[in-house]
Amino acid sequence: MADPKTQFYGASSLDGFLATSDDSLEWLLQLGDGAPTYAAFIADVGAIAMGAATYEWLLRHHLRPGSPEEQPWPYAQPTWVFTHRTLPTVPSADLRFVSGDGTPIHAAMRAAAGEKNIWLVGGGELVGQFVDRDLLDELIVQIAPVTLGAGKPLLPRSLHSPPLRLLSAQQFGDTFVELRYELPRAPTSQPP
Amino acid sequence: MADPKTQFYGASSLDGFLATSDDSLEWLLQLGDGAPTYAAFIADVGAIAMGAATYEWLLRHHLRPGSPEEQPWPYAQPTWVFTHRTLPTVPSADLRFVSGDGTPIHAAMRAAAGEKNIWLVGGGELVGQFVDRDLLDELIVQIAPVTLGAGKPLLPRSLHSPPLRLLSAQQFGDTFVELRYELPRAPTSQPP
Repeated sequence: MADPKTQFYGASSLDGFLATSDDSLEWLLQLGDGAPTYAAFIADVGAIAMGAATYEWLLRHHLRPGSPEEQPWPYAQPTWVFTHRTLPTVPSADLRFVSGDGTPIHAAMRAAAGEKNIWLVGGGELVGQFVDRDLLDELIVQIAPVTLGAGKPLLPRSLHSPPLRLLSAQQFGDTFVELRYELPRAPTSQPP
Repeated sequence: MADPKTQFYGASSLDGFLATSDDSLEWLLQLGDGAPTYAAFIADVGAIAMGAATYEWLLRHHLRPGSPEEQPWPYAQPTWVFTHRTLPTVPSADLRFVSGDGTPIHAAMRAAAGEKNIWLVGGGELVGQFVDRDLLDELIVQIAPVTLGAGKPLLPRSLHSPPLRLLSAQQFGDTFVELRYELPRAPTSQPP
């Protein structure tokens, strides 16, 4: 396997939103099951990070604990949830609730992931904070054939100088295209 | 040639902006010359539409009349400029300044274009108004490998039900991918 990476992987509207303003994903769910690249992607993931809103969305819309349609936690990997609030836990999940400086947290995730990748599930503000600390290696975005006009941005940052590097563009039927970008890295500081 | 179409064709950031909030395109111009598809695209264009801000940007940044670097008007096709203000004209250009209902204006453009396509250069609000009137057939977007975080949106509309249809995705090196979408059309009204 290649060098372990920290990756965003997820779907966005053509105009760069991860969700509507009220956190709906109906525009995405109407398009059918997840990306055909998911099985290969998740097999190489050793640790997961997500923001509080993404975690709560999973609970409310997917796991629905206590309901007749209750689903198990979907990930085997240890998962870091970035939150300033106390959130309900999930018994079957390997969860760590964290806040504060992302750099030591990323180091702990890197240690847990070993030779595997770190997956940033979202949302955009968490991805942005990893970018700010120069901790994100790749953006892997499935562009859905919709525009939302407004909503929760994929990456609320200006990243253009230098630009990203497009590694691949893979079309899936008449619906999705998956774009994979490498982020420019700040030069590693050298000892004097 | 296929049925004549009304098309948006232009570059967008990965997060769906046509320009920064102050109308800068520096993020785009740093990436080099226009798309390799442009020559074939413009050969099939019979009429052009643009908004006032796009026209003014062309004047200020490209044509620069009166300056030592003055450039000629770049299009042979008749061009409709949608504006509520009086704008300076360009002697060598076939320009029509218009405002008001887009549907009869589109019909005049269609008549002028004949068997060729109509190109919406931008900006997003003009594209949105054509979408509102069900006059846009295709979106052809070159996705630049940058995010802007904020700016002038590609298409300030919610278009997801039904979704667009992805016709093609063409990668150009490690920089651009050109995505071509067909818009869903409202059912044509039938005589009773």
